[in-house]
Amino acid sequence: MSKGRLEAFSDGVIAILITIMVLELKVPQQAGLAALRPLIPIFFSYALSFVFLGIYWSNHHHLLQATQHVDGRVLWANLHLLFWLSLIPFVTGWMGENHFAAWPVALYGTIMLAAAVAYYLLTLALMALHASNSVLATALGRDFKGKVSIVIYLVAIPLAFLNSWFAGSLYVLVAVMWLVPDRRIEKTLAR
Amino acid sequence: MSKGRLEAFSDGVIAILITIMVLELKVPQQAGLAALRPLIPIFFSYALSFVFLGIYWSNHHHLLQATQHVDGRVLWANLHLLFWLSLIPFVTGWMGENHFAAWPVALYGTIMLAAAVAYYLLTLALMALHASNSVLATALGRDFKGKVSIVIYLVAIPLAFLNSWFAGSLYVLVAVMWLVPDRRIEKTLAR
Amino acid sequence: MSKGRLEAFSDGVIAILITIMVLELKVPQQAGLAALRPLIPIFFSYALSFVFLGIYWSNHHHLLQATQHVDGRVLWANLHLLFWLSLIPFVTGWMGENHFAAWPVALYGTIMLAAAVAYYLLTLALMALHASNSVLATALGRDFKGKVSIVIYLVAIPLAFLNSWFAGSLYVLVAVMWLVPDRRIEKTLAR
Amino acid sequence: MSKGRLEAFSDGVIAILITIMVLELKVPQQAGLAALRPLIPIFFSYALSFVFLGIYWSNHHHLLQATQHVDGRVLWANLHLLFWLSLIPFVTGWMGENHFAAWPVALYGTIMLAAAVAYYLLTLALMALHASNSVLATALGRDFKGKVSIVIYLVAIPLAFLNSWFAGSLYVLVAVMWLVPDRRIEKTLAR
Repeated sequence: MSKGRLEAFSDGVIAILITIMVLELKVPQQAGLAALRPLIPIFFSYALSFVFLGIYWSNHHHLLQATQHVDGRVLWANLHLLFWLSLIPFVTGWMGENHFAAWPVALYGTIMLAAAVAYYLLTLALMALHASNSVLATALGRDFKGKVSIVIYLVAIPLAFLNSWFAGSLYVLVAVMWLVPDRRIEKTLAR
Repeated sequence: MSKGRLEAFSDGVIAILITIMVLELKVPQQAGLAALRPLIPIFFSYALSFVFLGIYWSNHHHLLQATQHVDGRVLWANLHLLFWLSLIPFVTGWMGENHFAAWPVALYGTIMLAAAVAYYLLTLALMALHASNSVLATALGRDFKGKVSIVIYLVAIPLAFLNSWFAGSLYVLVAVMWLVPDRRIEKTLAR
Repeated sequence: MSKGRLEAFSDGVIAILITIMVLELKVPQQAGLAALRPLIPIFFSYALSFVFLGIYWSNHHHLLQATQHVDGRVLWANLHLLFWLSLIPFVTGWMGENHFAAWPVALYGTIMLAAAVAYYLLTLALMALHASNSVLATALGRDFKGKVSIVIYLVAIPLAFLNSWFAGSLYVLVAVMWLVPDRRIEKTLAR
Repeated sequence: MSKGRLEAFSDGVIAILITIMVLELKVPQQAGLAALRPLIPIFFSYALSFVFLGIYWSNHHHLLQATQHVDGRVLWANLHLLFWLSLIPFVTGWMGENHFAAWPVALYGTIMLAAAVAYYLLTLALMALHASNSVLATALGRDFKGKVSIVIYLVAIPLAFLNSWFAGSLYVLVAVMWLVPDRRIEKTLAR
């Protein structure tokens, strides 16, 4: 089974998600600079989610690059990932419009946690199709970053109720950690 | 005539449908957990429709995988299917926002029935282009699941006026039945 | 210069247009059947525009199928077509929400006329790149349907101010005329 | 690393941006011609941004056409460009709805400046992967137009506070200058 449509469909969904998030930045009625001020937290939560979706797209790209074939289980593991990603615009808007209040920040982390787990399940579904000495297996290795991300989310979610800005900073930390694309796969493919 | 653009266009439409449905989950003004409560039925109807669109995408993927070529009639059978699928966000929102009331649940089933019939017509249009001993013909076989789905919808639609939650459960049943992707085609291709 | 991205980009834009039009069908607050009644004209104008965009996509597909290469002029002729197509959701909504009143029906025809002219310019830009005995040239021939459509729009637009329903029927006539995809190209390719 | 998904994802994002901008043209409640009058500035700002996004898509197409391979750095330079492009619908709506007032016009230019710089960084990231005598390097040459655009934006942004229509005219000038697609690349590829 070819992976072409899986890539095309995922590209489509992520491209749309990254774009409709910007609709939450509602065009103000007034023309002055002051009209933009209420949009600042919404802009920051937009920029953060843009980076997260960019990371997912980039890692998904690397992951499928190292993949030779897919099956029905992979299709559904991928749709499961897209389901959680599809909720990002909602939590992004809720967090931005409520100035990073406790519950929205905690829900943001929960959706991010679910997406991270879904991505991990997708790698498992792909590994089940590839030999343990394949490019994919070598490239994924122990998946250090994926595991650390999950731990950070688990810490940040309860933290949101103590200090939601600190929890938000932990999300930024995860994003920064991932910003370097998954060199493991690039390096392994190069060899 | 190549099938590439048919796949790309269908991927695009389904990706957009699956994504704009989430816009019906409107970002609440308040930051508390209570603000999410009214969204619960909308979330469930979103999740159900996400799974249905995922099933259509996955089955469409399998179907076209077994297809060698397409013609103008297939293009239009496919557009006809996409037309009914394009109404899913509307009925999903109507059903969710009205807490699974009778008419919205009945209309949801009607659109699902129309989409199921349109999918069946698409398989007929494809079969007309392929020999009766082709991969496609063998893989589709008697299309048991497709016929059962249509019967369930025909039962569920009138049932919505007696007990709309029971009708809704029948839709969930159809989704569960289809969640396993069409192994027939995978198996036939593997041989 | 390859035609792949021209096709992909056009597929994307048309897929999105066909899908966002459905957002004009706003989810009613009430659950009864009566709540759907005001949506009936909007639904009909949606269905008509869905068919028109389907026709453009299908003909575009056939046209590019017969094309060997593209240049910068073709890119812009194509973007020019997409510009007019992008206004279809707006005029569709305006016509539907105002129950096929004179001005909206006339503007609908004007946008359709502009799109038809833009499609004609695209065929000219493509012909300039291909020999007069190429598949494309033979397939396009005298482009009878394209010319008749333009004449019908020119008649229908002023007619909208006398009887907007009659003008609307002429648009349906154009759609019916085109529903059969461009067999000329399929036949010429088959030879 | 293949460039296919980079192209597909960029096509998707630009196609969606170009299309959701049209949602800012809100369907009027009245059916008369007068109902369209308030939309005229919004229409012009839509048309201008459509042309700009068309230029970016067309130049991106030419740029990637001359590219042999991409790496993680190129992926992120591309996402960075898409981030600024994703803000175009917002500034387009703000400028159109406020009849080309000073601040919206200045912000429009700022986003365009950021996108132009991001495009320049993308060409740098691509050049780092290709030899100085490659098709890409020869084709890009001194990138005269790119540099002139940045200078015009830098002049137009402060000018918006003196005469916003004059600043707007400078944006139109940039668009006209770019409307001819990047012949350098086409010519170099042809050789």
